[in-house]
Amino acid sequence: MDCCVIPLRHGGLSLVQTTDFFYPLVEDPYMMGRIACANVLSDLYAMGITECDNMLMLLSVSQKMNDKDRERVMPLIIQGFRDAAEEGGTSVTGGQTVINPWIIVGGVASVVCQPNEFIMPDGAVPGDVLVLTKPLGTQVAVNAHQWLDQTERWNKIKLVVTKEEVKEAYQEAMFSMATLNRTGLMHKFQAHAATDVTGFGLLGHANNLAAQQRDEVAFVIHNLPIIAKMAAISKACGNLFNLIQGTSAETSGGLLVCLPREQAAKFCSEMKSQSSAAGGQGAAGGAWIIGIVEKGDRRARIIDKPRIIEVPARGSQTANQENNSASPSPNLS
Amino acid sequence: MDCCVIPLRHGGLSLVQTTDFFYPLVEDPYMMGRIACANVLSDLYAMGITECDNMLMLLSVSQKMNDKDRERVMPLIIQGFRDAAEEGGTSVTGGQTVINPWIIVGGVASVVCQPNEFIMPDGAVPGDVLVLTKPLGTQVAVNAHQWLDQTERWNKIKLVVTKEEVKEAYQEAMFSMATLNRTGLMHKFQAHAATDVTGFGLLGHANNLAAQQRDEVAFVIHNLPIIAKMAAISKACGNLFNLIQGTSAETSGGLLVCLPREQAAKFCSEMKSQSSAAGGQGAAGGAWIIGIVEKGDRRARIIDKPRIIEVPARGSQTANQENNSASPSPNLS
Repeated sequence: MDCCVIPLRHGGLSLVQTTDFFYPLVEDPYMMGRIACANVLSDLYAMGITECDNMLMLLSVSQKMNDKDRERVMPLIIQGFRDAAEEGGTSVTGGQTVINPWIIVGGVASVVCQPNEFIMPDGAVPGDVLVLTKPLGTQVAVNAHQWLDQTERWNKIKLVVTKEEVKEAYQEAMFSMATLNRTGLMHKFQAHAATDVTGFGLLGHANNLAAQQRDEVAFVIHNLPIIAKMAAISKACGNLFNLIQGTSAETSGGLLVCLPREQAAKFCSEMKSQSSAAGGQGAAGGAWIIGIVEKGDRRARIIDKPRIIEVPARGSQTANQENNSASPSPNLS
Repeated sequence: MDCCVIPLRHGGLSLVQTTDFFYPLVEDPYMMGRIACANVLSDLYAMGITECDNMLMLLSVSQKMNDKDRERVMPLIIQGFRDAAEEGGTSVTGGQTVINPWIIVGGVASVVCQPNEFIMPDGAVPGDVLVLTKPLGTQVAVNAHQWLDQTERWNKIKLVVTKEEVKEAYQEAMFSMATLNRTGLMHKFQAHAATDVTGFGLLGHANNLAAQQRDEVAFVIHNLPIIAKMAAISKACGNLFNLIQGTSAETSGGLLVCLPREQAAKFCSEMKSQSSAAGGQGAAGGAWIIGIVEKGDRRARIIDKPRIIEVPARGSQTANQENNSASPSPNLS
C-alpha cells in the first residue's frame, strides 16, 4: 500500500501516514520543493484521502555548497514545499535538517481519519476501467534535458527531437510533477482502488496494485499517455528507460485509478474541467483511460504495441490544436 | 518544542509527531538502530507521552558499501530500530530507503492522544527542581573511543584516562543512548515541563526550554552528571567539546525535567528502581537533581565551578562501590 493505516485507540479513527524523500532532479529549487511535497502527498491522495493533518519536512543541505548558494537555494526549496503543502490544505510544522554530501528533500504526511475517508486499494472487479491522471515520461524528459549539454548523448537523440521540444517536455514534466494529485473525485466516482505511479514505473505500480486485489483480476494496459516526443527519445536510446515497457521511473507521477466502467469517462471529463478551472494546467491535470480490468492472476501487463498518446506540453503549438485529455480510447470499446 | 502538536478534526484529539535522522556514531549496527529509535521516541517522551501509535523508518544505504557489507549491516540496523520500537510498545510500519554517500538512520514517531496525555513544556515555576535522567558526555566518549587508534589524538588525553576507561565509557555511552526515555513518571510526579537533551547540549536545550516558559523563570544548573572521565578528557583537549560549559552535543540524551521541589527526590528514586528492575541498566537509567528554577529572564545558565558527578560505567569497579544516581545534591539545599 502507498500508506500505512494504523487503527487508533480512539473512536474508530485511523492514522494514515506516508513518507518519501529523494534527491533533486530539476534545476529550479522552488519547483523542486513543490515536487517533493506533491510526491509525499500523492500517497494519501492515492487512497482517496483529500485532507492532510500535518506535514514534516526532511531536508539535507549539501556540504559541497558554499554559504551563498546554500542561503539562496535552500529557502527556495523550503518555500516550494510549504506552498505545495498549503495548496494541499495543510502545513509544515516540523522536520529535520542535516548536512550530507547530497541534497535530500522529502517529507512525512499524516492524517487521522474515519474509515469512510479512505478507499482501501483492493476493490477492483472485472469490467473496471483503468485511468491514469498524469502523462508518463518524466524521467526521460529530465534526462534528455541534461543531455542538451552532453554532445555524445545529444547526438543519439537529435534525429528524433529538437532542442526546443526537449525544453518544452522538461517544463511539462516539471509542472506535471509539481501538480498535486488531489482530485477529490475518487469518492465521487466510486473508485475501487488506486495507487500513484512513481519509482517502479506504470507497470511496476500496476503490478503491485493488481497483486493486492481481493478479486482474481488482471490489469491490461492498452494506452500509454506520454509527454510528447519522450517515446521517440526512449526508442532512440535503445529503450534505455523502458518507457514503452512501462518500467521507466516516474517522480510524483499520476494516480492509476480503477473505476467502474460507467464512471470512467465522467471521471476523466471532470478531471479535465478541474484542470482548466485551475488555470489551464493542461496535460498534467488530465486523465486518460489506459486499460481494463479482466479476470486473471493478479498481475498487470501492457499489450503488444500499445497506443502511444502523445501529450503535448502546455504552451506548445500542438497543445492548442489538440488535447487528448479526457478522451476515452476507442481501442477499448 | 520537541514535537509538533496538531489539533485534529476529531473529538478534541491531537496528533503529536516528531522526526529525527542522523549518521551512525557507534560501530555496532544493531545498537545504532536502537539508538536511532530511542532518539526519535525521546521527543514524545519529553512531552510526557508514553505511547506511540506508529513509527516510520528513514534509512539510506551507503553507495560505498559492497553488497556483502550491506547485507550484513543494514538488517542489523533495522532490527535494532524495530526492537527498540517494540520496547516502546509500538511498531514500524513504513518508511523510505535511498542510496546515499553516507548511511542515514532515523524515523518518524506519531501518536494521536487526548489533551491529558501530554504535558505542554511551559509550566515551570520558581522553586521547581531540574532533574536530568541520563549522564552527559556521549559525544566525548564516542570521540575518545575513535582516538584509541589515532596516536596524535590519543597522546593528548592519555595522561588523564586509560584505554580501559575509554572503552568502558564508550560502552556506557552506547547503552545510555540506546535506553528509551520512556519513564511514565512525568505525569505521576506532576512534571511542569521537560525536554530531551540532544544536539545543542544540556545548556542549549535548557535555554530553549526556559525560553518557552509562561512564567518569568530562569534555570540555574549546579551539577553536571557526566560519564566517568569524560570531563577530564574534555579539559585535556582544551575544552574542545565544551562539555563543562554545557554545549557538548549529546545523542539520544536524557530528559531534562522541571519537577515540583517536593516531587524531585521521589522521581529520582523511582527512576533508579525502574532501572534496577529492568536488569540493572545502571547509570543510564538514573536521574540526578542538577539545578533549580528561579525567577528570571527565561534563560538557563550553569554556575561557576559546577559540581561534576562522575557517573561510573555499569560493570566498572567503581560502579559497584558508589552510585550517585538518585542522590539529590547537597549543594542545592
